[in-house]
Amino acid sequence: MAKKIGIADTMFARVDMFKIVKKALDDSMESDIKLERYTVPGIKDLPVACKKLIEEYKCDICMALGMPGDKPIDKTCAHEASLGIIQVQLITNKHVIEVFVHADEGRNEKELFEIVEDRTYKHTLNAIGLLKGKEELSRMAGRGIRQGKENVGQIKGK
Amino acid sequence: MAKKIGIADTMFARVDMFKIVKKALDDSMESDIKLERYTVPGIKDLPVACKKLIEEYKCDICMALGMPGDKPIDKTCAHEASLGIIQVQLITNKHVIEVFVHADEGRNEKELFEIVEDRTYKHTLNAIGLLKGKEELSRMAGRGIRQGKENVGQIKGK
Amino acid sequence: MAKKIGIADTMFARVDMFKIVKKALDDSMESDIKLERYTVPGIKDLPVACKKLIEEYKCDICMALGMPGDKPIDKTCAHEASLGIIQVQLITNKHVIEVFVHADEGRNEKELFEIVEDRTYKHTLNAIGLLKGKEELSRMAGRGIRQGKENVGQIKGK
Amino acid sequence: MAKKIGIADTMFARVDMFKIVKKALDDSMESDIKLERYTVPGIKDLPVACKKLIEEYKCDICMALGMPGDKPIDKTCAHEASLGIIQVQLITNKHVIEVFVHADEGRNEKELFEIVEDRTYKHTLNAIGLLKGKEELSRMAGRGIRQGKENVGQIKGK
Amino acid sequence: MAKKIGIADTMFARVDMFKIVKKALDDSMESDIKLERYTVPGIKDLPVACKKLIEEYKCDICMALGMPGDKPIDKTCAHEASLGIIQVQLITNKHVIEVFVHADEGRNEKELFEIVEDRTYKHTLNAIGLLKGKEELSRMAGRGIRQGKENVGQIKGK
Repeated sequence: MAKKIGIADTMFARVDMFKIVKKALDDSMESDIKLERYTVPGIKDLPVACKKLIEEYKCDICMALGMPGDKPIDKTCAHEASLGIIQVQLITNKHVIEVFVHADEGRNEKELFEIVEDRTYKHTLNAIGLLKGKEELSRMAGRGIRQGKENVGQIKGK
Repeated sequence: MAKKIGIADTMFARVDMFKIVKKALDDSMESDIKLERYTVPGIKDLPVACKKLIEEYKCDICMALGMPGDKPIDKTCAHEASLGIIQVQLITNKHVIEVFVHADEGRNEKELFEIVEDRTYKHTLNAIGLLKGKEELSRMAGRGIRQGKENVGQIKGK
Repeated sequence: MAKKIGIADTMFARVDMFKIVKKALDDSMESDIKLERYTVPGIKDLPVACKKLIEEYKCDICMALGMPGDKPIDKTCAHEASLGIIQVQLITNKHVIEVFVHADEGRNEKELFEIVEDRTYKHTLNAIGLLKGKEELSRMAGRGIRQGKENVGQIKGK
Repeated sequence: MAKKIGIADTMFARVDMFKIVKKALDDSMESDIKLERYTVPGIKDLPVACKKLIEEYKCDICMALGMPGDKPIDKTCAHEASLGIIQVQLITNKHVIEVFVHADEGRNEKELFEIVEDRTYKHTLNAIGLLKGKEELSRMAGRGIRQGKENVGQIKGK
Repeated sequence: MAKKIGIADTMFARVDMFKIVKKALDDSMESDIKLERYTVPGIKDLPVACKKLIEEYKCDICMALGMPGDKPIDKTCAHEASLGIIQVQLITNKHVIEVFVHADEGRNEKELFEIVEDRTYKHTLNAIGLLKGKEELSRMAGRGIRQGKENVGQIKGK
C-alpha cells in the first residue's frame, strides 16, 4: 500500500525546499510513496502542521523544512520549534525528520543554497529508509554521516 | 459557516494590537470571519488564554499578541510563552500564530509602532490563509517572506 | 457563588507576600472571593502546589508567589518553575498568575520590598479581573501596564 | 496509616545522601513514615525513578537526591533533570523535593559535604511537613529560609 | 523470561557504539537478555525511536547512543534530545539510559574512542542492573562513579 510523507514548509525560508524533496523522491524511483504538503508562515508553526499531517492526513512520516535566521531570536525560535517537533513524534509515534538550515551556515547565498539542497535531498532518502524499517539505516550507523556537508567518517579502536 | 479567530492580547504591550487585527480583517473583506478577544496581564498568560479561546469559545485559530520587554528576563518570559503556545497547538491541533514584537526591535517608538503594525497586519492575513486550507500559503513558500520588515526574497540554485 | 483564589507561597521568599494578597483582596471589597493557601519550600515546588489547589481544593484561579535569588542557578530555577506554571494552566484550563520578584530587582531591601508589594497587590487585582471574564481587562490592553514599577504607557501611530 | 517517602539517589553523587535522609527521619521521631529507595546512575535518571516510586511503589512524596558536576554540560543535565522532576509532580499530583548540590557550591570537599548534609537534612524535614498538609509550612513562609546555608531572614515593610 | 534492551543509535555518531553494547552484554554472561536495534539519522531522532522500541517492540529498558558535535548548535540538539529522552521515560515508566559523548570530550580521535568505549560499556552494565531491580545499584550510590572516565570517589563527613 502507498505510504505518505508529510512535508511541512515555510514562507520564511529562502529556498524552495519542497522542490528538492520532490526531486529526491523522483530520483529514488519509489513509486509507492506520495507527498502531502502543508505550508505555514514560520518554523514555530511547523510542529502543529506536522501533527496535523500525521493525524488528519494520515502521513506515515514527516519532514519539517525550515531556514531559521541568523539572529539570537532566530536561534531561540529554532530551539522552540525543535522541542515541539520532538513532542509531535512522542505523541504520534511517527518520525518527523527536522531539516533546518541556519542562515549563517553558508558564507554566501550560493553556499547556503548548496547546503539546503544537500541536506534536504539526503534527509528525504533517510525518511524513505525509516519508512522501510527500524534497521534499514543500521549499515550506516556510527559512520559519521552528515547532511548538508561531507561525511566525517568512522573512528575505529585499536 | 462562520469561522472564529481568537485574539489574545496583553495589558503589558504598548500598542493596541487588537485594533490592527480588526483593521486587517475589515480590509480583507472576509465577512464570514469573526473575532473573539481575551485580554491577560502579560505574555506568559497568553498560552492558557489561547487554549480557552479554542476549547471554550470554539475558535478555529488563534493569534497571540504580545510585546516582550528588552531585558534578559523579558527574553526568558517570551521563550516560556512561546513554548506554551506550541504546546497549546499540539494539544488542540489548531494553529496559534504568535505575533511578538520585542521592545528592542525598533530604534524608537515610531519605528517600533511600524513593526508592530506591519507584523500584526500581515499575520492576520496569514491566519486567514491557514483557515482556508493547508496549501493556501504554498505559493509563498520558500520566498523569504517577513512580517514586521521587508521580505528578503528567494535564493535559487544554478 | 463564592470563588476561590489559590495562593501558593514559599519559605524561600523574604517577604510575606500572602499578607499583601490578603490586603489587596480586603481593599477590593470583593466579599464573595475566598483565599486558599499552600506553602512550599521553594519556587520549583510551586507548580504542583498550584495544580493541587485547582484540582483538589477547587480553586478557580491561582497566584504563584516567589522571590528567586540573584545567582545564575536561581534564574534557572525561576525559568523551570515558570515552565511548570504554564503547564499547570494548560492542563487545568485555569489561570495561574506568576508573581515573581527577583532578588536583584531592587537596589536595596527597602526598594525590593516596595516592588514585591506593588507587584503582588496589582496582580491580585488582575486575578480578580480574570475571574470576572475574558474581556474584563480589555480596556487596559496595549497600554504598557506594569506591576512592581510604573506603567510605561501606550504608543500610538500617526 | 504509614506514609512512604520515596528516595531516589545516584551513583554519580559523591556523598551518601540517603544516609542523611535516614538520620533526619530517625531524629524526627516520625515512626509512621517509611523510606523506599531507588538508585540510578545519574541525575537525568531521577525523574522516572521518582515517577515509579510514586506510581509503582505507592510513595506519598519523593526526594530526588543528586550532585551535578561543575562543568557547563553538568549544569545542562541538572536543568533537564529539574524539568523532568517538575513534570513528574504535575503528572502524579505529588511533591518531589529536589535536593541537588552542585560540585562548585563548596570551596573544598569539607564544605561541600556540609552543604550536602545541611540541605538534605532540612529538606527531609520539609518533606515530612508537606506530608502533613498544605499549610504545615505556612508559619515559615516569606522568611528567607535556606537549605545548605544559613537563613537570610525576612524583609518587612514600613 | 527473557528481557529486552532496546538500542537506538545514529548514523551521525563516529563510533560503532552498538558493537560496544553487544560486547558488554556478551561479557556479562546474561544469557537471558536480548538486544533490539533501531538506527536513526541523528540524536534528535532518538527519543521517538526509544519510545517505539518500548511500546512497539516491547523493550524493558533502552539505551540512547549518540555523539553530538562540538558546535553550539550541536549542544542545543543534545539538550533537545535529552529533554525528549526524559519525556519518553515519563510516558512509558521505563528507563532510557542516555549515552552521549560530545565530540569535544576527547583531545583526539584515540581519546574520544576510549571515552565512547568506556561510557557505553559501563552504561550497558548499568542498564542490566536497572533491569534487576530498583536497589540493584544502591551499593554504588554516592560513590562518585563515572562513565567515560575514572571514578572520583566518595566524600565522607567528619
